[in-house]
Amino acid sequence: MKLICTQENLNKAINIVGKIINKNTTLPILNNILLKTEKRRLKLTSTNLELGVDYWIGGKIEKEGEITIPTKLFSSFISSIPNGNVEMDLKGDVLSIKCEGYKTNIKGMDAKEYPLTPKIEMKPIFKIKSFDFKQALLQVLPAVSNSESRIEITGVFMDLSKLDKNKIILVATDSYRLAEKTLTLEKENINKETVSLLKDINSVIIPKNTVQEIVRDLGNEDEMVEITISENQILFSFGNASVISRIIEGKYPDYKQIIPSKFEADVIVEIDEIVKAIKVASLFVNISSNSIELKLLPKSKTLEINAETSEIGSNRSKISAEIKGKELAVIYNYKYLIDGFNSLSGDKAILKINSGGMPTVLSSGTDKSFSYVIMSIRA
Amino acid sequence: MKLICTQENLNKAINIVGKIINKNTTLPILNNILLKTEKRRLKLTSTNLELGVDYWIGGKIEKEGEITIPTKLFSSFISSIPNGNVEMDLKGDVLSIKCEGYKTNIKGMDAKEYPLTPKIEMKPIFKIKSFDFKQALLQVLPAVSNSESRIEITGVFMDLSKLDKNKIILVATDSYRLAEKTLTLEKENINKETVSLLKDINSVIIPKNTVQEIVRDLGNEDEMVEITISENQILFSFGNASVISRIIEGKYPDYKQIIPSKFEADVIVEIDEIVKAIKVASLFVNISSNSIELKLLPKSKTLEINAETSEIGSNRSKISAEIKGKELAVIYNYKYLIDGFNSLSGDKAILKINSGGMPTVLSSGTDKSFSYVIMSIRA
Repeated sequence: MKLICTQENLNKAINIVGKIINKNTTLPILNNILLKTEKRRLKLTSTNLELGVDYWIGGKIEKEGEITIPTKLFSSFISSIPNGNVEMDLKGDVLSIKCEGYKTNIKGMDAKEYPLTPKIEMKPIFKIKSFDFKQALLQVLPAVSNSESRIEITGVFMDLSKLDKNKIILVATDSYRLAEKTLTLEKENINKETVSLLKDINSVIIPKNTVQEIVRDLGNEDEMVEITISENQILFSFGNASVISRIIEGKYPDYKQIIPSKFEADVIVEIDEIVKAIKVASLFVNISSNSIELKLLPKSKTLEINAETSEIGSNRSKISAEIKGKELAVIYNYKYLIDGFNSLSGDKAILKINSGGMPTVLSSGTDKSFSYVIMSIRA
Repeated sequence: MKLICTQENLNKAINIVGKIINKNTTLPILNNILLKTEKRRLKLTSTNLELGVDYWIGGKIEKEGEITIPTKLFSSFISSIPNGNVEMDLKGDVLSIKCEGYKTNIKGMDAKEYPLTPKIEMKPIFKIKSFDFKQALLQVLPAVSNSESRIEITGVFMDLSKLDKNKIILVATDSYRLAEKTLTLEKENINKETVSLLKDINSVIIPKNTVQEIVRDLGNEDEMVEITISENQILFSFGNASVISRIIEGKYPDYKQIIPSKFEADVIVEIDEIVKAIKVASLFVNISSNSIELKLLPKSKTLEINAETSEIGSNRSKISAEIKGKELAVIYNYKYLIDGFNSLSGDKAILKINSGGMPTVLSSGTDKSFSYVIMSIRA
């Protein structure tokens, strides 16, 4: 392998493929990045066996070849050298790197030892603006479960059954709260032919780690991300990168039934104000329950936020609120409330409240495509 | 205790006194801040028994009193509430705090349980601009030893024997490198009378933790810091704060003898360039030795920086340098070199080099009051 590329491209590529690498001691080669010339470009690859990332960069390829290089060293080195051309020349398992001011040799490991990343032969099902997809994933991500006992809720559920109406729905829950986001696609960005090939696949569950990786990698630029699905893999292609991941097997819970349609009260508040008040109250919660109380005082147009623990003390704050409905006091885990408010866009939040252990629905005053359902705690 | 003060003052005070508090499980009250009205002001105090900090704030004192309050809770709470007036009212061991939008009770512990901070009855010996003192301490701090087997070098040595020439000297060493800074005082800022009372005290060793605390607390403003010394305590007074600390007992090593007066070569380099090159080289060092090689090439006006470890690879970089003397290759621990270059002011560094395990002296091209001596490693 012999080639010339730029420090800037190489650095960007390492930033994207290098992030999924965790210290792997059972299979040390997984701590390396695979460099491989492919179709007159240089491909950088990393995988943790659940998830694989490829990134292609242009350059002048003088001799084909492949090698794997320790990610941490390669990343630190390339990010430290000056911008400009980088010459790479592989001799045996040693990669020589020359650039302005530096002459470096890095010892690699044979590329033949590197596990193959799976391929999907299908065509993409749909494409969507990177920014929109990223924002949607960020909105549902906090609600994904970490529980390893219910593996089916440790990912984001992507419902494809409304593709005929140009919609996909993203859902996440950990059984204490649930986030639901509807994305509307441009009609021309849906590949009808591939959809018809999907047959029985009308939803997939994308592992949390994969979603986090996608969110990290997707830029805010105006580029598109293409989504391709096979029986047990999902592929995201965008810019010079592609991310392939396994799909979680299992049946996602029938979540629709827990979202209530009738409520005891409606509250409208400023998101910044209530988040601030909840954070202050959180200093006074019992760490075993994390409970805070929201008290609705419709007559004085006030929402009271209360927390108390006998060994610590107590805190009461008041913020102004538009309240429709009766006087109520409802208890929540403050962490789930903060996650919910932080997921909303815009300045104002609408809370549709039921007391006594029933669900409350949070939504934004401006964006109806997202809602966050949180269970209240029976007093 | 009943008083009104401002959130701004209270927050500033907690930031200063709250920092020295480490989680203390044997004496839980040390996790608290002592609040005490004193001379119509509110005094906040914290101590870790080695080091005590007082900070005074103004306010309207309606009723004298004292209480201790958990630092972490108090700090998080006060930093979260809005700017403006804060009313505090002590009832039993519960401190009620009222401010805009919030009503809060915090459970405290009896102030009588709180250890007394020692007092020094002497007058200050000298005063100096906060900024100058802080910068000087920052220059020597990295060289202070962490070794608990030689307790006398785990602090900054302050030599007072040149006070008659208006100078104090700060020294730190861990036996691998040594930093020496001379501070020149204004004549009128030295209290001749107190100096004459010092008798046999012509130096003190200030514990590293105390120096770190002082560096954190001293502002960059134009205020002065007054230094007072007794037989086993040192007091720093500045603005509304005072920090009192024990002094390390023991005899500081006679460091002057290790600084050589003759050198094999002189090198002048750009500090930024050499630090960058050393950082890149550090990726290739053997982690048991941290060795890098500086190679002086006088003919080509080049300094070569080399590092190599067979399992990792090798790195060579070149930077331009003015070199007087012969061709030399000298080995150093790269960490000590980086600390040294980072301690220098200005753009250029002067290295006065001896090879073969002898000391090298680093100084700034512009500031002669500071020098950093580093032992080279015998090849």
